[in-house]
Amino acid sequence: APNPCTDFDMAYFNSYAHLGIHEEMIKDRARTESYRNAIFQHQDRIAGKVVVDVGCGTGILSIFCAQAGAKRVYAVDASNIAVQANEVVKANNLSDTIIVFHGRVEDVEIDEEVDVIVSEWMGYMLLYESMLGSVITARDRWLKPGGLILPSTATLYLAPVTHPDRYSESIDFWRNVYGIDMSAMLPLAKQCAFEEPSVETITGENVLTWPYVVKQVDCYTVTLHELESVSTRFKFTSMMRAPFHGFAFWFDVEFGIPVKYPSNNNTRTAFVESPNNQNTDGTQRKKRANPNDALVLSTAPEDPPTHWQQTLIYFYDPIEVEQDQVIEGSVTLSQSKENPRFMNIHLEYASNGRYFVKESVMR
Amino acid sequence: APNPCTDFDMAYFNSYAHLGIHEEMIKDRARTESYRNAIFQHQDRIAGKVVVDVGCGTGILSIFCAQAGAKRVYAVDASNIAVQANEVVKANNLSDTIIVFHGRVEDVEIDEEVDVIVSEWMGYMLLYESMLGSVITARDRWLKPGGLILPSTATLYLAPVTHPDRYSESIDFWRNVYGIDMSAMLPLAKQCAFEEPSVETITGENVLTWPYVVKQVDCYTVTLHELESVSTRFKFTSMMRAPFHGFAFWFDVEFGIPVKYPSNNNTRTAFVESPNNQNTDGTQRKKRANPNDALVLSTAPEDPPTHWQQTLIYFYDPIEVEQDQVIEGSVTLSQSKENPRFMNIHLEYASNGRYFVKESVMR
Repeated sequence: APNPCTDFDMAYFNSYAHLGIHEEMIKDRARTESYRNAIFQHQDRIAGKVVVDVGCGTGILSIFCAQAGAKRVYAVDASNIAVQANEVVKANNLSDTIIVFHGRVEDVEIDEEVDVIVSEWMGYMLLYESMLGSVITARDRWLKPGGLILPSTATLYLAPVTHPDRYSESIDFWRNVYGIDMSAMLPLAKQCAFEEPSVETITGENVLTWPYVVKQVDCYTVTLHELESVSTRFKFTSMMRAPFHGFAFWFDVEFGIPVKYPSNNNTRTAFVESPNNQNTDGTQRKKRANPNDALVLSTAPEDPPTHWQQTLIYFYDPIEVEQDQVIEGSVTLSQSKENPRFMNIHLEYASNGRYFVKESVMR
Repeated sequence: APNPCTDFDMAYFNSYAHLGIHEEMIKDRARTESYRNAIFQHQDRIAGKVVVDVGCGTGILSIFCAQAGAKRVYAVDASNIAVQANEVVKANNLSDTIIVFHGRVEDVEIDEEVDVIVSEWMGYMLLYESMLGSVITARDRWLKPGGLILPSTATLYLAPVTHPDRYSESIDFWRNVYGIDMSAMLPLAKQCAFEEPSVETITGENVLTWPYVVKQVDCYTVTLHELESVSTRFKFTSMMRAPFHGFAFWFDVEFGIPVKYPSNNNTRTAFVESPNNQNTDGTQRKKRANPNDALVLSTAPEDPPTHWQQTLIYFYDPIEVEQDQVIEGSVTLSQSKENPRFMNIHLEYASNGRYFVKESVMR
């Protein structure tokens, strides 16, 4: 039996009933055009086939799949936006191709196996929202062996950052307020500004060194269990002398094909890894290796901004680091017990003999 | 006995416990510099005198008053920010001058009459938040006859606006989404975008004609009773042919002196009105008349933006108006029964034989 639908789930689904959030996502061209390009790039595996769109929202990805020639698309969303998606499908005379289900992938019934799963499930810092679980459920319920999942992999990165302007604007500001010394505010200012993760846009210049891979998700093989808690140790060597203000998280996803395609061996197999990504968990990588020319949707600071931006965890006080100084520690991301849609972020880090712990909750 | 402190009040006070909101207000230079300039312009009525700062926040206005030579400043705030204000006062060695009270003006005890009340009480569209009631309470409890209130008057304006870009971006957008006709979304898009008042910045070019005065508040004489419901009829003549998208509200406040100053007649008297403002309620005014050279803090579309921006009430569908077309109707602002800190906005308007009603709640 599927997990029961909790009040937390209902609140989550309701948050997608408002159109503004869909407008924002659709207007994110990097996002929407990546999906459209990926769907048309894989047209040979979609045309004439059966697709399920997990968390279809307004139905735009389902319509792209119909345009790419899908025989049938099951568009599933537990939010009330599904009612609107159905209206859009009808108005576009696509009711014969696209079947909209207003419900959870755990609860709806699809009476056939599907060839393709498409889903835009990524939350802030990839795993926030925990929607990947719905993709796993859909995969395990309906995907044919050798079927396609878009995106095929997702990678979460971590890097140390410097951001003097941000620190100055929120913290140093209080040192001189129209000539008044309000430094007495500093402890509260640091707490208010930096207690919770902050979703904001930084640039490549804010990043002190190459990012670390916190987690690589293979959408063909990932399990619910391995998402409950994601943990890695890291070791950075700062490329410059700078105040180290905190850590940034971002992610990218690839729209690749499963290995051994075309395949009839009925084994569900892992995404083709690029050779130097074989040992990605915890590996610091300098440059994306992408021998398959898989399409990539990146939310990295050096790439054009998306609505995901980056997620920053700031320290209360910056740490002055020298060039080549080592920063090491560990990070653990886990579902909050308070609300499984929330995420606990536990960071431990040490540099130059000092050791720190920072606990945050993304609500 | 004062009104009891409700859960709504507690939620309201808590919303000011976070520093970010104070940072935003302080960084609004039009706001903070207007208050500082007003305090120093009225230095002759502040130096050596007793002041109460209603809703002191971080205490910045109290410190300006101390800098202007106040003998004593009572800084009152019901939010926990008062604890921080007290730290700032101590750190600046002003504890002998500024006494911070963490409580409501209804509840704290000040054992003397005060010469001056200073307060930054204005909410969105002036009356949202209902903080003016606390200024009235402070005035009636402590202000000496002939005492100074800063600001002295406040005026709420209403004007019809055109905003094709905003309409197009939120509504027409759905007509062509990456080549897909999503017009089926239009009813929901209009409801989501335009059901609630929208705080945003427009410019003078968005305004179809001169504004109407919805309410002029004389801080010396205003009563709690007259704020429970504010109502006026209006009549506009459009200065151009344009789609009429909705109404904008904004306000200004003046930092004037009470009449008959210097005065010993012990009657609390109204602010000096400029001659052509005698009949302001409902009067369309073309230009501020300000014979007293009172300092003005304006949040009008033609003035530099402030953190208050303007408050817009959009219609679901625009009304095409011709040049010289008359728009008439009425507006009523009243405290919400759901939460007295919320505001109901009831608009009736007619043009060219068509009649409309729009109800909104500012939450």
